[in-house]
Amino acid sequence: MANITKKVSWSSRGDESGAAGEETPLLNGSEQSRPLRQQDSARGRPKEIPHNEKLLSLKFESLDYDNIENQLFLEEERRMSFVAFRCLEISRWVICGLIGFLTGLIACFIDIAVEQLAGLKYRLIKENIVKFTEAGGLSISLLLWVALNSFCVMWGSIIVAFIEPIAAGSGIPQIKCFLNGVKVPRVVRLKTLVVKVVGVIFSVVGGLAVGKEGPMIHSGAVLAAGVSQGRSTSLKKDFKIFEYFRRDTEKRDFVSAGAAAGVSAAFGAPVGGVLFSLEEGASFWNQMLTWRIFFASMISTFTLNFFLSIYHNKPGELSNPGLINFGRFESEAMEYNLYEIPLFIAMGAIGGGLGAFFNFLNYWLTIFRIRYVHRPCLQVMEAMLVAAVTATVAFIMIYFSTDCQPLGPDHTEEYPLQLFCADGEYNSMATAFFNTPERSVRSLFHNPTGTYNSLTLGLFTLTYFFLACWTYGLAVSAGVFIPSLLIGAAWGRLCGILLASTTSTASMWADPGKYALIGAAAQLGGIVRMTLSLTVIMVEATGNVTYGLPIMLVLMTAKIVGDYFQEGLYDLHIKLGSVPFLHWEAPATSHWLTAREVMSSPVTCLNRIEKVGTIVDTLSNTSTNHNGFPVVVQVSGDDEPAKLCGLILRSQLIVLLKHKVFVELARSRLTQRKLQLKDFRDAYPRFPPIQSIHVSQDERECMMDLTEFMNPTPYTVPQDTSLPRVFKLFRALGLRHLVVVDDDNRVVGLVTRKDLARYHVGKHGLEELHLAQT
Amino acid sequence: MANITKKVSWSSRGDESGAAGEETPLLNGSEQSRPLRQQDSARGRPKEIPHNEKLLSLKFESLDYDNIENQLFLEEERRMSFVAFRCLEISRWVICGLIGFLTGLIACFIDIAVEQLAGLKYRLIKENIVKFTEAGGLSISLLLWVALNSFCVMWGSIIVAFIEPIAAGSGIPQIKCFLNGVKVPRVVRLKTLVVKVVGVIFSVVGGLAVGKEGPMIHSGAVLAAGVSQGRSTSLKKDFKIFEYFRRDTEKRDFVSAGAAAGVSAAFGAPVGGVLFSLEEGASFWNQMLTWRIFFASMISTFTLNFFLSIYHNKPGELSNPGLINFGRFESEAMEYNLYEIPLFIAMGAIGGGLGAFFNFLNYWLTIFRIRYVHRPCLQVMEAMLVAAVTATVAFIMIYFSTDCQPLGPDHTEEYPLQLFCADGEYNSMATAFFNTPERSVRSLFHNPTGTYNSLTLGLFTLTYFFLACWTYGLAVSAGVFIPSLLIGAAWGRLCGILLASTTSTASMWADPGKYALIGAAAQLGGIVRMTLSLTVIMVEATGNVTYGLPIMLVLMTAKIVGDYFQEGLYDLHIKLGSVPFLHWEAPATSHWLTAREVMSSPVTCLNRIEKVGTIVDTLSNTSTNHNGFPVVVQVSGDDEPAKLCGLILRSQLIVLLKHKVFVELARSRLTQRKLQLKDFRDAYPRFPPIQSIHVSQDERECMMDLTEFMNPTPYTVPQDTSLPRVFKLFRALGLRHLVVVDDDNRVVGLVTRKDLARYHVGKHGLEELHLAQT
Repeated sequence: MANITKKVSWSSRGDESGAAGEETPLLNGSEQSRPLRQQDSARGRPKEIPHNEKLLSLKFESLDYDNIENQLFLEEERRMSFVAFRCLEISRWVICGLIGFLTGLIACFIDIAVEQLAGLKYRLIKENIVKFTEAGGLSISLLLWVALNSFCVMWGSIIVAFIEPIAAGSGIPQIKCFLNGVKVPRVVRLKTLVVKVVGVIFSVVGGLAVGKEGPMIHSGAVLAAGVSQGRSTSLKKDFKIFEYFRRDTEKRDFVSAGAAAGVSAAFGAPVGGVLFSLEEGASFWNQMLTWRIFFASMISTFTLNFFLSIYHNKPGELSNPGLINFGRFESEAMEYNLYEIPLFIAMGAIGGGLGAFFNFLNYWLTIFRIRYVHRPCLQVMEAMLVAAVTATVAFIMIYFSTDCQPLGPDHTEEYPLQLFCADGEYNSMATAFFNTPERSVRSLFHNPTGTYNSLTLGLFTLTYFFLACWTYGLAVSAGVFIPSLLIGAAWGRLCGILLASTTSTASMWADPGKYALIGAAAQLGGIVRMTLSLTVIMVEATGNVTYGLPIMLVLMTAKIVGDYFQEGLYDLHIKLGSVPFLHWEAPATSHWLTAREVMSSPVTCLNRIEKVGTIVDTLSNTSTNHNGFPVVVQVSGDDEPAKLCGLILRSQLIVLLKHKVFVELARSRLTQRKLQLKDFRDAYPRFPPIQSIHVSQDERECMMDLTEFMNPTPYTVPQDTSLPRVFKLFRALGLRHLVVVDDDNRVVGLVTRKDLARYHVGKHGLEELHLAQT
Repeated sequence: MANITKKVSWSSRGDESGAAGEETPLLNGSEQSRPLRQQDSARGRPKEIPHNEKLLSLKFESLDYDNIENQLFLEEERRMSFVAFRCLEISRWVICGLIGFLTGLIACFIDIAVEQLAGLKYRLIKENIVKFTEAGGLSISLLLWVALNSFCVMWGSIIVAFIEPIAAGSGIPQIKCFLNGVKVPRVVRLKTLVVKVVGVIFSVVGGLAVGKEGPMIHSGAVLAAGVSQGRSTSLKKDFKIFEYFRRDTEKRDFVSAGAAAGVSAAFGAPVGGVLFSLEEGASFWNQMLTWRIFFASMISTFTLNFFLSIYHNKPGELSNPGLINFGRFESEAMEYNLYEIPLFIAMGAIGGGLGAFFNFLNYWLTIFRIRYVHRPCLQVMEAMLVAAVTATVAFIMIYFSTDCQPLGPDHTEEYPLQLFCADGEYNSMATAFFNTPERSVRSLFHNPTGTYNSLTLGLFTLTYFFLACWTYGLAVSAGVFIPSLLIGAAWGRLCGILLASTTSTASMWADPGKYALIGAAAQLGGIVRMTLSLTVIMVEATGNVTYGLPIMLVLMTAKIVGDYFQEGLYDLHIKLGSVPFLHWEAPATSHWLTAREVMSSPVTCLNRIEKVGTIVDTLSNTSTNHNGFPVVVQVSGDDEPAKLCGLILRSQLIVLLKHKVFVELARSRLTQRKLQLKDFRDAYPRFPPIQSIHVSQDERECMMDLTEFMNPTPYTVPQDTSLPRVFKLFRALGLRHLVVVDDDNRVVGLVTRKDLARYHVGKHGLEELHLAQT
């Protein structure tokens, strides 16, 4: 793929390693650390950096799933009684409950807000259309529709583009990265949550081809990251609770629970939520964690269900477990037969192909956007354009549709449009377009045979496919699940109708809703390529396990066919972000690589008792920007190289410098408070940059004793370890730094995430991605 | 708990470590390695060894989930092309498909055999009862019933007790251990499978309070272990396929798939199967593996469904996804309301309490059996006794029951007994007792209100509870799932009836079947203490997700309440087997322990080029029986201790000795074939004992070069590493040996499974189990 320029919106400061080997010269560090978007407005021109998908950005930091077991930590743990550990365990359950509850509330808020606002909009437009249908002048209605949509989308896009660009899209790729161990900047902040929630309401009300489900996953994750820390840095409010959980290990566990709660609230699928978290995130799970995740999921769907039942004036009737409700599939009506299975598999293949095509189009669109549509104002304008076009296309489709259906006595259509149909009839195309996408999906699944004719469905599929593809990647907060389901349900139902018309035993194929469901699964699977979790989500959303096997077969087929052409949508976007994402296993043919070839070297090491000046200089060195430093100790004389005795992080050094933990000061001021774990926790996770810490010339001559603070037992590997073995260790333990040592335990290199992520299997065997400072 | 003596039926040869520290003097090694049961018959008296549950047996070997990346392996991997890896991946899928298919077939076989034989039995007895009801002399019917039951159970028990004792019970504890990484001897052999399958048919037909579901999990696992190796050692048949998979890593993955396929076939719960495998087994999973497991599960339930549909003369109608079928719960009838949730939770608590009581009774019963009922003939007699008592109790209950119900026109009872009821009526107690347990469960779930009166249900619960408790642990192949469900369904239905009678709004509580379901979940959860997987299994078996939340709440409550009193049944039996089972995490308060305290030392090390005599002596040393040996190299002179350069296993050394890979021979016979990985794979997994290998006195003076064969990059930790850190590394990577080194990379100790498993949290904080050679 061609080299392109990219406005980096995922970027962050510093690479992981303490090694100074292969880095290319870099820009001024302090400038680099500011979000580039701010530079845009400052200079009026975006910073464009040569960039392509074969690059791996060095700007992403890793999360540290490995506890820093330094002396302070061990002392604290050893002081803790068994009861204290029990209390911690209970707090974890309480937090998970809270996460579930709040996620459910947010889902509830989104649902009610969308329903109210969209209802208002559709009623307004409907009245207008009714008024002008007879009188002529429907173009005024069109204008009204376009104006309302664009207006909503404009606000949704403005807050995303100008306030928090990371809130764009569904947030699922970002959460995947976070769970994978990549610290995506600003992704779990309160501001992001607010923009996400408000943004998704505007997008859905604005009539874009988007869903409100995907963003729930991101919302749940943000909530989890916030609640579990017992404070909000944005609001400058510290509740002084849950301080024990202020580290990456714990935070990441809670974020898994949050993501699961999000899925659960979105689809009413608690088990699917757990599986989503496991499938997308955790390589290291354990039973207790899984149960907590499950608990959060259950509470989340229950909260949503409960509050929606009150909202619908049927308190206690728990029939709305999720934001999207596939409606009740009656078992008898939905039986399938053995000979239908090949048909389902064929539909899976179609879904996989269409999904790959969708991803392919979206891939190029994204590259186009990276290259040309990088200014916030342009992004807002594009979003408004899409909103206008969506409304126009919908209007035209409805206008020219001749598919009139009788309005049943118990019609389920919320806003039936009569338009040019006879009295007592309504326009069938309008049920698909003139509705929130969730309702459209439901009517495709459940409306009786004959509600839609083939032409309506065909045209709808075609237009909605391209609209959805254009929409995904706009600077609005929006999900791709529902549009995918909608496209799939439309062509699936079409398949059902066509099958029924070609076979004589029409009664066998009586229910096109069944095919709509299979089509929806196929299309969604073809786009996002999840299997196990998606199967369970679909089954839970339909509320009927009868369809487990066909849905699973369809999703598998869709994935196999889709993967043949193109990666999944989320993976594609992760790749375009140049994120050092670690897959499950090292590339198959990488056994000939060893740690020696993979590692970064030489490594910047620190002595156990090190001069403050050296530390400050090392940290300030913007050409390296290292985050982890092996600590070494000189054993016998100067001739022998130093031996590894620990590992210390940039963040720890900064806290030490800030508190001036110098050997000389400790001697002079005996009363000085000893540094505690609390000081590190208070600074977590936004450690100040080194530039903000003032160290006087005198202090530079002081010494710092790192013994207490470094991790004395970092994981190490010998130089000859094969890449798959290094990879397995790194991935299974969620490491950030892995020290490579020689036979005498001397540091020879350091392996970080980027060193492992850059190898991947390409068309010509093992390929190596280039590293870039973007 | 008191010291008890135990006939070790799980025992195995050799402990893991190469360390010779704290072992107690041992019996003669070669005798030790023979199954103790054979000694019994040989000497006429069982070998009794002091033993209690606070012991940890050294007799269990570990599986090695860590690939031995020696030079041979790396050379092979490096020679392999990308296409070859693709082919391997495809083989894995094919194997999983086969596992699923065969598991489904076996389930089908069991189902049909049980149905036919049990049908025959019940028809015979029914005719007899009908004959004697009027005429008097029902005692003859009782005798017939007792005789038939005892006869069946006798055969079922004989094959288990005399041929393969490991096939007793459900096999789930054994599979849990296997997935945890403990090599339980003979657990995945063909003979075990045959005995298991035939045994379970006899047990169920023999009318014991057992289910045929649990054994399916074991059967699936055995199948998986067999199919994936492409050969059967028992049948001495090597198909020369899948040779690449002949190592612990791959085998264990397939066994996970087999266990999942078993669950899937048993309960028609493919997702539940996957979760069972994950929850009980894999701490290290990955996406591809999970999908393969899911695939095997799907194929398994589908195969069963398909063949049963043919058997039932309705080919293609896929309505029998599992061995147990809860029947169709209609959504409308089964709605629950918010205020019922506290009731459900209360039922969960009851289930937890009853489950703990069940486990408590079974625990003491098991200890009694270990002490007094260890001879096979006694075991057979006990099993026959239980069968006779079960039949007698059932008969008496039915005889004295006055609960007559009218026989509906479309009665679902298979074998309705009229007995002393009026014409057109049948004995209600008989539907619960005179039936296979699966049918009884279904009738408790679905029979209309009023089918059972409270007294019937109460008496049934009481008797069945004790019968089931007595039955579990007999030397028969049998599962505990169905009896648990049955007990729970009975008292659950009772709760429903009582609730309906105490409230005025009787219509609200109209359906006691709902409470039967909740009770069943509560009782099962209280006994086995699974949560996530069991929730999904129950939901899939009911075919209705509406009950997801209540079932989950019930299972959680049952677990919390149950855990307060007593461990789960499977964990209890694992503990009684003194298995070094590794839990998910190190005990919470174990941070003050370091590798130095935990490890075994001193360690028996081998030189890289070692004298054959030394190796033979080391391996023959029955007082240590080590399985892994660090390989060291002397660097500079004799004064400095040797440095670690690799790790070699007993099994590898034995293959080397067998092939006489001596340096001298290689020099003299240049044409000698170089040893290949194939030679190791051919010997896997039943490596010959060292005693069977003849090494002449001349050969003892030869040297062996271990460089090519040892794992050159074993995982190591420094001495100061805390126990939780060691534990995490060990568990996450599924290690068998972890070398502890000092700052200069010299071996100071070795950590094996038993070193980690012996620490556990007891009543008085951290406790240490004793190690024993039993």
